[in-house]
Amino acid sequence: MTTEAVLAVDIGGTNVRLALVDATGNLLADWRATLHLSHVQSETTMIDTIAELLRPTLRKHPVRAIGIGFPGFFDTSRGLLIASPNLPYIHNLPLAKLLTTALSVPVTLQNDALCAALGEFHFGEGRDASNLLHITLGTGVGGGLILNGQPWTGESGMAMEFGHTRVHPEPTARWCGCGNQGCLEAYASATAITRMYADITGERLDAKQVQQRAREGDSLAHALWTQAGSSLGAAIAQCVVLLDIHRITISGGLLGAWDLFYPALHNTLERVVISAQRERVSVRASRLNDRAGLLGAAILARLSL
Amino acid sequence: MTTEAVLAVDIGGTNVRLALVDATGNLLADWRATLHLSHVQSETTMIDTIAELLRPTLRKHPVRAIGIGFPGFFDTSRGLLIASPNLPYIHNLPLAKLLTTALSVPVTLQNDALCAALGEFHFGEGRDASNLLHITLGTGVGGGLILNGQPWTGESGMAMEFGHTRVHPEPTARWCGCGNQGCLEAYASATAITRMYADITGERLDAKQVQQRAREGDSLAHALWTQAGSSLGAAIAQCVVLLDIHRITISGGLLGAWDLFYPALHNTLERVVISAQRERVSVRASRLNDRAGLLGAAILARLSL
Repeated sequence: MTTEAVLAVDIGGTNVRLALVDATGNLLADWRATLHLSHVQSETTMIDTIAELLRPTLRKHPVRAIGIGFPGFFDTSRGLLIASPNLPYIHNLPLAKLLTTALSVPVTLQNDALCAALGEFHFGEGRDASNLLHITLGTGVGGGLILNGQPWTGESGMAMEFGHTRVHPEPTARWCGCGNQGCLEAYASATAITRMYADITGERLDAKQVQQRAREGDSLAHALWTQAGSSLGAAIAQCVVLLDIHRITISGGLLGAWDLFYPALHNTLERVVISAQRERVSVRASRLNDRAGLLGAAILARLSL
Repeated sequence: MTTEAVLAVDIGGTNVRLALVDATGNLLADWRATLHLSHVQSETTMIDTIAELLRPTLRKHPVRAIGIGFPGFFDTSRGLLIASPNLPYIHNLPLAKLLTTALSVPVTLQNDALCAALGEFHFGEGRDASNLLHITLGTGVGGGLILNGQPWTGESGMAMEFGHTRVHPEPTARWCGCGNQGCLEAYASATAITRMYADITGERLDAKQVQQRAREGDSLAHALWTQAGSSLGAAIAQCVVLLDIHRITISGGLLGAWDLFYPALHNTLERVVISAQRERVSVRASRLNDRAGLLGAAILARLSL
């Protein structure tokens, strides 16, 4: 592998981050852009839109490889984007190949949460671990799993649908966007916090405002963050009980509420994980400040060189 | 690897099975024995007891390797039995090394449920899969996981404590022997079925008798098997959502109640697993008739040759 910089891209629902990343994980330059993928109505338009977004950067900074984190399920062995939750027209799209042709630079893609896991594993709080569960807490809840240093994608690229771990099986549990009840994402995402607060008070606040309210002594706001923490703790505990992995990291927009949700997360883990494992498990806040996904995308790019 | 037979041993709480197994998984000869491990009060006595149990067989059938499935957590890299749920005096015991010395034949050991998973993966319903979750349903509930053809033991040999997957988080959930509430084992093991039936009726029947009752139209007995099935389905679904693996096999003493618990298991899976994965997931009853553990132990032995 060479030390030259690669182009890393982290594509979200509307926000895109781009960076030139060197071999040691330094961002030599980085940019933000807006991409309204939900407005795009076909595979062809989507490819054109992404290619056009990247071309100006490539003209100014020619690179030999591009890595992209993208919200969707990938079949890595066949190089296909199988599906993307918010882009219903996508079905087994050879996105990497098509973008490589459009841009004349090798493009590698992977699920955005798995990219964040890769970044955290190589450059963040997972640096000294051999296995890692990385959780992205934002609008939704994502997860990426590293086993023996390798990304675990599952048999159909759909592993670690961590937001759809079922943490509340009771019949009165909240409904999730996926059509099931009681999913983690229905309790511990920014969307869930906003909805639950609005359902009870009638007041529609974003997750940051509900944080603020909790800090000002609003007991409902506080209870919602506690519930988010205990739901997260229950989902993490399931993963620890099944896989016996000890390092868990969390990144994403809700990290600012760490002090509000972590105590309940910790208590739930303590209560549910069997005692012999308890003291080995370490749940840590990412310190990469949202660079995890970009750094993981850079690793993808570098591996293709 | 040679084709000669090895000695495979499957040690349970009181019952031990032994077999000479050839390279293609045929049992050339097999025996049953009784071993009251719970009466044994020290590591030294335990090693002597196991060695004495195996010596007569070894005298009649000299083999070059022994594989043993044992109820406990193993640190494979360091060759240690870390702990065994029913043998509190065990702590980081180099059991393989000590038995190898005592018997003058190389001994390899692994967790009993993981042995069953290995057997099922190589000779049973997992033969054509690359990943497998194998569940043992008996007095307790165990699990073994094969990822990319390799046993996954976890960072401290405690992976796949499948019986302690939390399927009922409600405050009224049943207590499990592990000290937690709502574990799968508290709903879907022989012990659980017996206890739940007795708690409600005052009548103490074994799991086979509760099967019989269900078939005779006893609605409580029927409801308990349905509950066992839906609890199993919920636990399997968690594993599918996290790991995206598609083949699940079940062995053990409760297989006779398959027709009573499978419909609820299937319905729960259908309800909880996201649609794209649903049709790929296959849950199958083992057809190895309790030989899975022995066959896995034989593989352990063979790998050491």
